[in-house]
Amino acid sequence: MTAAPWPRIAVLGAGAVGGYFGGMLARAGAPVIFIGRPWFVEAVTANGLFLDSFQFQERVKIAASTDLAAVRGAQIVLFCVKSTDTAETAKQLAKVLDPGAIVISMQNGVDNAERIHAASRLAALPAAVYVAASVPQPDTIKHVGRGDLVLGPKNPQTEFVAEAFLRAGVPCKISETLQSELWTKLVWNCALNAVSALGKATYGEIIASEDAKRVVEQVIYEVLAVARAARIPLPFFADPRAAIEGAVKIASQMAATRSSTSQDMMRGKKTEIDSLNGFIVRKGAELGVPTPINHALFTLVRLAEAAGNSEVSSNK
Amino acid sequence: MTAAPWPRIAVLGAGAVGGYFGGMLARAGAPVIFIGRPWFVEAVTANGLFLDSFQFQERVKIAASTDLAAVRGAQIVLFCVKSTDTAETAKQLAKVLDPGAIVISMQNGVDNAERIHAASRLAALPAAVYVAASVPQPDTIKHVGRGDLVLGPKNPQTEFVAEAFLRAGVPCKISETLQSELWTKLVWNCALNAVSALGKATYGEIIASEDAKRVVEQVIYEVLAVARAARIPLPFFADPRAAIEGAVKIASQMAATRSSTSQDMMRGKKTEIDSLNGFIVRKGAELGVPTPINHALFTLVRLAEAAGNSEVSSNK
Repeated sequence: MTAAPWPRIAVLGAGAVGGYFGGMLARAGAPVIFIGRPWFVEAVTANGLFLDSFQFQERVKIAASTDLAAVRGAQIVLFCVKSTDTAETAKQLAKVLDPGAIVISMQNGVDNAERIHAASRLAALPAAVYVAASVPQPDTIKHVGRGDLVLGPKNPQTEFVAEAFLRAGVPCKISETLQSELWTKLVWNCALNAVSALGKATYGEIIASEDAKRVVEQVIYEVLAVARAARIPLPFFADPRAAIEGAVKIASQMAATRSSTSQDMMRGKKTEIDSLNGFIVRKGAELGVPTPINHALFTLVRLAEAAGNSEVSSNK
Repeated sequence: MTAAPWPRIAVLGAGAVGGYFGGMLARAGAPVIFIGRPWFVEAVTANGLFLDSFQFQERVKIAASTDLAAVRGAQIVLFCVKSTDTAETAKQLAKVLDPGAIVISMQNGVDNAERIHAASRLAALPAAVYVAASVPQPDTIKHVGRGDLVLGPKNPQTEFVAEAFLRAGVPCKISETLQSELWTKLVWNCALNAVSALGKATYGEIIASEDAKRVVEQVIYEVLAVARAARIPLPFFADPRAAIEGAVKIASQMAATRSSTSQDMMRGKKTEIDSLNGFIVRKGAELGVPTPINHALFTLVRLAEAAGNSEVSSNK
């Protein structure tokens, strides 16, 4: 008896998310090609990709290319670039993508599928991604928590993709309320990411401070007010305390971690703040919901980002 | 004809403020002793103090000691330690101060005289200090703007001190509304210091950003609401736009400067945030005035400070 053939998979963007989920698929035997920047392609072509997981350690041989045209022939495309690069990457992708390929956005934020579509006319399916991982070196993915996905709604495409992930040992649910799932994740990201970045704090340090917890609470109240005005059904409307408890729980599970926003800022890289607190500010303005704390966090991260960029470029 | 003798002056704390105003007095011929940390005392004992002003450059010979007891015999004590050290320094000062000495607090914040009194029973007179200066090296004061003082109310003590400053070429007014003057300065400091620190931004970069200007505005509205509840007469109550215009004007005058809070944070030192946005938060809570943006700024600076301290100590 021969196993069914794997779908051919391309991973766009070689950060922690693409590296982890693409790496898991490759490790299970799926034909995966990573498309990323030269430093990444060079390192993994020479050494393979080292999955340094809290559950196992394994070096996986993978194919990699800097050329987006290498996406040709893929049946599933994992769209894992930073949200700041969405529009540009989507435009280029539309020129080379096979017509039947399924594009899954595994990015932070709630409007990625819309933004991909607006830039490229491609119909992407969003996924809610839960993983704590980082890229300590170009050829290494450090995986410290979770590693599961939610797709939706149930249809032949999401079932096809979910089957591949499940076969690779990645928990993958299909939900009829994916938008609520994405917004719930947005609540946590808005609540914790910028505070971790600006306060140079781990999640554990944030919830150890009564003052910081109060800021987190204020952010959550604003995000929930925007979600309510946007008619997104969230489980927290009946009792916002549950949202705050949820944030505290996540923060204690990842107590030693700093947010991706914090990691980007420390490296002088652009953050995804525009898709997190920035999105809430814009959506709030559109719906007439005040979001002063989200606005302050967004603005301070933006200012610090600009400083980081100029510091980096002045080193050249 | 012999000139009248100078009063004997001691300067506590050898930062930019103590260095500049004490240095101006010493340069004019007043007997000044600086009391500071070993690195400062060593440097200025060896080289004198270099006043690198936008108006002149001059190296001034000065006396310096690490021992607070050197304050004995002084008629005027310029109390210039960081507000975080106020209580401890005041307590020690009370043990060695001559009974007739006049203590002038030249610190940031509006409650320094109260805090000195609470810690030591000493009656200090506050001054509103306007100077843009920094300490690029232990023996150097870089002076880039203003350099004037307001004392008050008019009485023999303030007149005695003002006379000494005027004789040394330091503009020094006596005001019957010093508390309003101190609060006005607090408005600027609350509006600009934390944003500069968290956003790693110069004052010029802050006012170049519409978003950052909006944060500055929110902070100012909160501070004015607290001042009003505290019955501090401020000129801005009739038209808060004047306060915002004032902040923008100050920021453009010092466009290339980062706040002292920012400088402290970059060096992993404790900031004075507790006397600035922190004070507004406490006063607001006491008076029932909400101050969410001041609270967020205060909290984020506090978190980042803790990180700075642990980063510095982990280098040991």
